[in-house]
Amino acid sequence: MKSKFKADAIMQVLDIILPNHQRPLVLHEPSFAGNEWNYIKQCIDSRWVSSAGQYVNDFEERLKTFTGAKYAVAVVNGTAALHLSLLVAGVKAGDEVLLPTLTFIATANAVKYIGAIPHFVDSSEYSLGLDGAKLNQYLHDVASQKPEGCFNKNTGRRIKALIVMHTFGHSVDLDLLLRLCQEHNLILIEDAAEALGSYYKGKHVGHHGLLSIISFNGNKIITTGGGGAILTNDSLMAVKARHLSTQAKLPHPWAFNHDQTGFNYRMPNLNAALGCAQLEQLPHFIKKKRDLAQRYQQAFKSLEGIKIFHEPDYATSNYWLNVLLLDEAHMQERDHVLQLTHKNGIMTRPAWTLMHKLPMYAQCPLMDLSTAESLERRIINLPSSAFLA
Amino acid sequence: MKSKFKADAIMQVLDIILPNHQRPLVLHEPSFAGNEWNYIKQCIDSRWVSSAGQYVNDFEERLKTFTGAKYAVAVVNGTAALHLSLLVAGVKAGDEVLLPTLTFIATANAVKYIGAIPHFVDSSEYSLGLDGAKLNQYLHDVASQKPEGCFNKNTGRRIKALIVMHTFGHSVDLDLLLRLCQEHNLILIEDAAEALGSYYKGKHVGHHGLLSIISFNGNKIITTGGGGAILTNDSLMAVKARHLSTQAKLPHPWAFNHDQTGFNYRMPNLNAALGCAQLEQLPHFIKKKRDLAQRYQQAFKSLEGIKIFHEPDYATSNYWLNVLLLDEAHMQERDHVLQLTHKNGIMTRPAWTLMHKLPMYAQCPLMDLSTAESLERRIINLPSSAFLA
Repeated sequence: MKSKFKADAIMQVLDIILPNHQRPLVLHEPSFAGNEWNYIKQCIDSRWVSSAGQYVNDFEERLKTFTGAKYAVAVVNGTAALHLSLLVAGVKAGDEVLLPTLTFIATANAVKYIGAIPHFVDSSEYSLGLDGAKLNQYLHDVASQKPEGCFNKNTGRRIKALIVMHTFGHSVDLDLLLRLCQEHNLILIEDAAEALGSYYKGKHVGHHGLLSIISFNGNKIITTGGGGAILTNDSLMAVKARHLSTQAKLPHPWAFNHDQTGFNYRMPNLNAALGCAQLEQLPHFIKKKRDLAQRYQQAFKSLEGIKIFHEPDYATSNYWLNVLLLDEAHMQERDHVLQLTHKNGIMTRPAWTLMHKLPMYAQCPLMDLSTAESLERRIINLPSSAFLA
Repeated sequence: MKSKFKADAIMQVLDIILPNHQRPLVLHEPSFAGNEWNYIKQCIDSRWVSSAGQYVNDFEERLKTFTGAKYAVAVVNGTAALHLSLLVAGVKAGDEVLLPTLTFIATANAVKYIGAIPHFVDSSEYSLGLDGAKLNQYLHDVASQKPEGCFNKNTGRRIKALIVMHTFGHSVDLDLLLRLCQEHNLILIEDAAEALGSYYKGKHVGHHGLLSIISFNGNKIITTGGGGAILTNDSLMAVKARHLSTQAKLPHPWAFNHDQTGFNYRMPNLNAALGCAQLEQLPHFIKKKRDLAQRYQQAFKSLEGIKIFHEPDYATSNYWLNVLLLDEAHMQERDHVLQLTHKNGIMTRPAWTLMHKLPMYAQCPLMDLSTAESLERRIINLPSSAFLA
């Protein structure tokens, strides 16, 4: 018989699973047990620490090999990668871009940077990512196809792209969303910031859409300190993104000519050196994190009113951050759980505040967002570092 | 008697000054002879490599101590620092921003990022930076003062700010430009990307205007791999810049709330660790670079038709990149010098292509730019790494 849900019970289970670890225990901490120091020392000794160097090239090659994407462009962070992806995909000021309201703010901010308008979409409880079936229905109501593309009947603005986000490392249903993008003439961009090491039907995420991005922030499955990358199978997109990431400077032995307004977004070699060492350990990190997820699932299965989120059937997830999902009947207890765990030195966190509730995005177009609203009140992320398994 | 100018003669002198150094010899290479390994190893061992950590705080403290600025905010690069400076200074889309046409492209791009319009100003042969006297005259013709600020009579747009750039590490005449900004109700921003370790009338550049920026790119006097900082004496500007550099997230133990569209611009701790070690050696680097400048000046003084640029009387410069300045009579020989030096493994470079000649800035407002046009054809930068002295 399942015991009745309460915050104390959750705290007890966490203390059993995470007994010998330091307090406070953060949500995600990197492990540097490989060639990190070795490569960084070589990088410093070579004096190539900045925006050119062998480690940046190596890092991109290794990313391509690991993910299967044809092209990879390493940049300063995931936000920069999103910004460039939207630019090279041809999204313009005044266009609308569909994206989940349940996401980290970088997804919406990147759209805003280019003067485009976020248009918020609901999420699925099955993947925690964008609900393709519901979006399909919504677009049949609000979208109108014209020769030049998809338009929003209500605002009159063009809907140019759809950004999906693989939430906490769980892939969205990409086949469904690709079909939908094809039908409605939308560009698909994958925000795979959290999903390095995650697979959709056996294929690594991040090269199903036209472009995708990955983050290597300190809290991700691997880190470069700060860093991100664009993945694509489209050579023109890759060339454009790389060009824009290096101030759009034209190659020449000495002359400084730039053919457009570029950005200073290239990943420094120093950070790429760290990334090369981290990538070597990625299969190990994925295994450990999947083991940890299984341990959480086992440990919490006897608690009534909650579940540990399980990857969708079509996915093999990196379980970047484990999710303790409260039943709707218990969602008012979320803050109690957050308070109690923090008090006991176990860092937990709720989902991000939904984008459409933030002041700068409160006026953006949106569909019914009831599932995301519900998920927001029920998600609690648990400590998920690889070394905890 | 001075010998007649020619490219061969320049090459001969360079071979005498730089005899025992590797070929190819790049324009500027960092030196890592201090605590670089030490601090970076500590940083990795601490596992705090990303956008928070003790080295970022230390780096900011050390920058404040060295420059005398009250506040420093470390970010991913100088371009990001310029972008944030313009934002927190209140420059809006549609405003005009005065800046030298003779500058690196980041100065103009940052203005463009926020939808403002670069308005190009001429440079002075005395400082290689913005010509304050000529700008003063120009503004008396084109600027009109209204209660809400300074307006361009020709375009009707507000002129909100003036960005000065301390070219190759030589300060502009800040007193003159501050008076001019006061008179015309303009915000002064110093682009000190190249000028860490440079002084105006004995006071470090970078806190005369409301805000200033520094770059720590790999080719600068000190490097963090990639990096930049905002300096200011205004606490509100510092608070705003720091907030925007961290995605505008409101402090809370777990909740994700953001009150505006921020940016992912914070310098990673890993890069700051390198910066702390580099800053410790900065006085040494400055001394070496000033020695090298003196050696260049001595070595070239017998060559007719050229001079090595000497710091303005009011300045004590870091001589970031030494400048060989051709007389107007010899400016057609610039490319010959560039070709010959490159052929012989000595990397030299011309000035940046002037901003108003680039396609994306060709339509921007501008004044007479004849001095900058002349300088562009006569400047040749020489290898200037500290270890060459």
